Amino acid sequence: MRITILGGGGFLGRRLARRLAADGVLRTAGGERRIEALTLFDLAAPAPVEAPFPVRTLGGDVADPAALAAAIPPGTDVVFHLAAVVSAAAEADYDLGLHVNLQGTLAVVQACRALPAPPRVVFTSSVASFDGGQEARLPDDARQLPTNSYGAQKAMGELLLHDATRRGLLDAVSIRLPTVIVRPGRPNKAASSFVSAILREPLLGLPAECPVGEAFALWVCSPRAAVEWFLHAAGMDTALLGADRGVNPPGRSATVAKLLEALADVAGPEARALVRHVPDPAVAAIVGEWPAAFTATRARKLGFAEQEPLDEVVRAFVDEDLAATRAERGL
Amino acid sequence: MRITILGGGGFLGRRLARRLAADGVLRTAGGERRIEALTLFDLAAPAPVEAPFPVRTLGGDVADPAALAAAIPPGTDVVFHLAAVVSAAAEADYDLGLHVNLQGTLAVVQACRALPAPPRVVFTSSVASFDGGQEARLPDDARQLPTNSYGAQKAMGELLLHDATRRGLLDAVSIRLPTVIVRPGRPNKAASSFVSAILREPLLGLPAECPVGEAFALWVCSPRAAVEWFLHAAGMDTALLGADRGVNPPGRSATVAKLLEALADVAGPEARALVRHVPDPAVAAIVGEWPAAFTATRARKLGFAEQEPLDEVVRAFVDEDLAATRAERGL
Ligand SMILES: NC(=O)c1ccc[n+]([C@@H]2O[C@H](COP(=O)([O-])OP(=O)(O)OC[C@H]3O[C@@H](n4cnc5c(N)ncnc54)[C@H](O)[C@@H]3O)[C@@H](O)[C@H]2O)c1
Ligand SMILES: NC(=O)c1ccc[n+]([C@@H]2O[C@H](COP(=O)([O-])OP(=O)(O)OC[C@H]3O[C@@H](n4cnc5c(N)ncnc54)[C@H](O)[C@@H]3O)[C@@H](O)[C@H]2O)c1
Repeated sequence: MRITILGGGGFLGRRLARRLAADGVLRTAGGERRIEALTLFDLAAPAPVEAPFPVRTLGGDVADPAALAAAIPPGTDVVFHLAAVVSAAAEADYDLGLHVNLQGTLAVVQACRALPAPPRVVFTSSVASFDGGQEARLPDDARQLPTNSYGAQKAMGELLLHDATRRGLLDAVSIRLPTVIVRPGRPNKAASSFVSAILREPLLGLPAECPVGEAFALWVCSPRAAVEWFLHAAGMDTALLGADRGVNPPGRSATVAKLLEALADVAGPEARALVRHVPDPAVAAIVGEWPAAFTATRARKLGFAEQEPLDEVVRAFVDEDLAATRAERGL
Repeated sequence: MRITILGGGGFLGRRLARRLAADGVLRTAGGERRIEALTLFDLAAPAPVEAPFPVRTLGGDVADPAALAAAIPPGTDVVFHLAAVVSAAAEADYDLGLHVNLQGTLAVVQACRALPAPPRVVFTSSVASFDGGQEARLPDDARQLPTNSYGAQKAMGELLLHDATRRGLLDAVSIRLPTVIVRPGRPNKAASSFVSAILREPLLGLPAECPVGEAFALWVCSPRAAVEWFLHAAGMDTALLGADRGVNPPGRSATVAKLLEALADVAGPEARALVRHVPDPAVAAIVGEWPAAFTATRARKLGFAEQEPLDEVVRAFVDEDLAATRAERGL
């Protein structure tokens, strides 16, 4: 089995690569299959990972056909397409968002189409492709009426991959990811960056600002769950999906209050006291449109794993990422 | 008021141009406004129309930024974006469909964005962007899960225009047109070409083949209704639409039997007897996925006009288009 991760240098791309390296195999509907080769592709060539199979690292633009042809060579079985310009960045730079999120996904289709056999493509779409806001609990057939350019570009990417699947050019599963917490490192350009920050920064002993109130609810998941979903999507029998290649995975609806409670459970009331409420209308305007919950019935039936409880999510960050984040930030 | 019609040489583009020429004004929410200039743009420069205002005709590719900049000059108030590769053609040539229907619409966004003030854009999306088939009667908030590349490209175009509207780059209304009948001239590359052919060919005294059974239902409208909707969309107060710029207009659900009844009403049983049932699984596979009906509640509330009865639609073709079609085809 030959695998490519586009966006392989990012937060989730690196976790996925480490997990593939640790497993050495991919569980598919037809049984376990040995991984023979992994390509990590990102704007700059990602750092290699230790693995029991050869790992290639390549730098390039996902919207560049020649770069993609190198990243997705003949014989590729699975492409994880995670390369993206995230929400606030795509809102700030319209052309950049279109280039990477729309033309990039089109280039992925063309690269896959050039292969002798259609590969599985796992695409990371987003909760940001929906509207509905705080009151919403969206059913599986909810339409996507995005309220931001990132979400619109993700919904277009889904349509492209859905149609390319129907045409037999590739075999796509689009996972509309919740906001993934706790993101290590520094705050990033996602409008939802604060959701990780109000947990991560206090765990580092630093203050954090929360732009929305305690009652504000968000649809979240852990990086562990996200990677489980990627692997499940890569190996599942896609005949079960029928024509509809979009999946709303079983994340968790959590209020800011619940997140801060989990923080206090793990790190004590002092950690929680480091979070101040500082309303930010610009951020609230974006995330306030995203639906706070989904039924996720179909994904559960299709075998997408449940999310662990919030305190475990916070604990996993402490165990796996806190030291590295501290080092990275010179703390 | 300065107006551009992209696809101005096509079936609906020419009717719209003639109607604008006849009216000389556009009715808007703020009152009647005089038309000062009209640009007709198509692959080849369309034939001019007689009008009380200057008419420019331009040839070019809608996906070419320079051609579009010429077609949509500063001061343009309304762009009708009708340029498209239709259903069976986009299915047969994937790259051509993407080029015209996706990249073309992106070029329209970029051209509008370059104007000093955001123009109204009326976009012709399609019933083909939905699924559901014969049993469906789709509500206004039905999601678009296209079953053909043309429909997928139209749905992507809607997402682009929806987001560009939200960003203030233009002010779009996307009309998901039913199958427009009776189309004059020759059969074309739309999968729904037969719906017009089973009326037009017998009216010309020619035999016609119907690829689906008599009970097969279709969502149809007349060219007169389509042009009314275009004009309404061009002049309406779009604040009434809110964020959702897609409209399912009040077409009519008609079975093949009802269409043939209207034919017999207008041209007698001999005309009807010219239609033979010759099943075509390839055509049935495409149109069989399109929803047979919509509630169209929202469009009615927004003032989109009702459809005339079927026999009137057939009679209008006889009165307005039969002679020209006869001449065009040398009959
Ligand atoms: N993390 C979340 O909360 C979340 C939520 C919903 C969806 N997603 C989606 O999941 C995917 C992974 O998210 P992440 O958190 O790891 O994001 P990330 O920003 O850490 O990773 C994305 C990677 O894409 C790369 N990239 C950007 N432009 C590129 C280009 N032109 N060519 C090649 N690579 C390019 C970036 O360098 C980055 O390494 C993304 O598609 C994202 O939109 C993430
Ligand atoms: N007629 C219908 O039944 C129907 C139904 C649903 C939607 N629509 C949509 O309504 C619009 C008008 O339909 P129509 O029946 O008049 O179609 P048409 O094919 O008669 O007109 C479309 C025009 O677009 C032009 N065109 C194609 N590629 C182009 C390019 N690269 N650059 C510039 N122009 C290009 C064609 O030359 C043609 O004149 C289209 O967008 C169509 O998809 C039509």
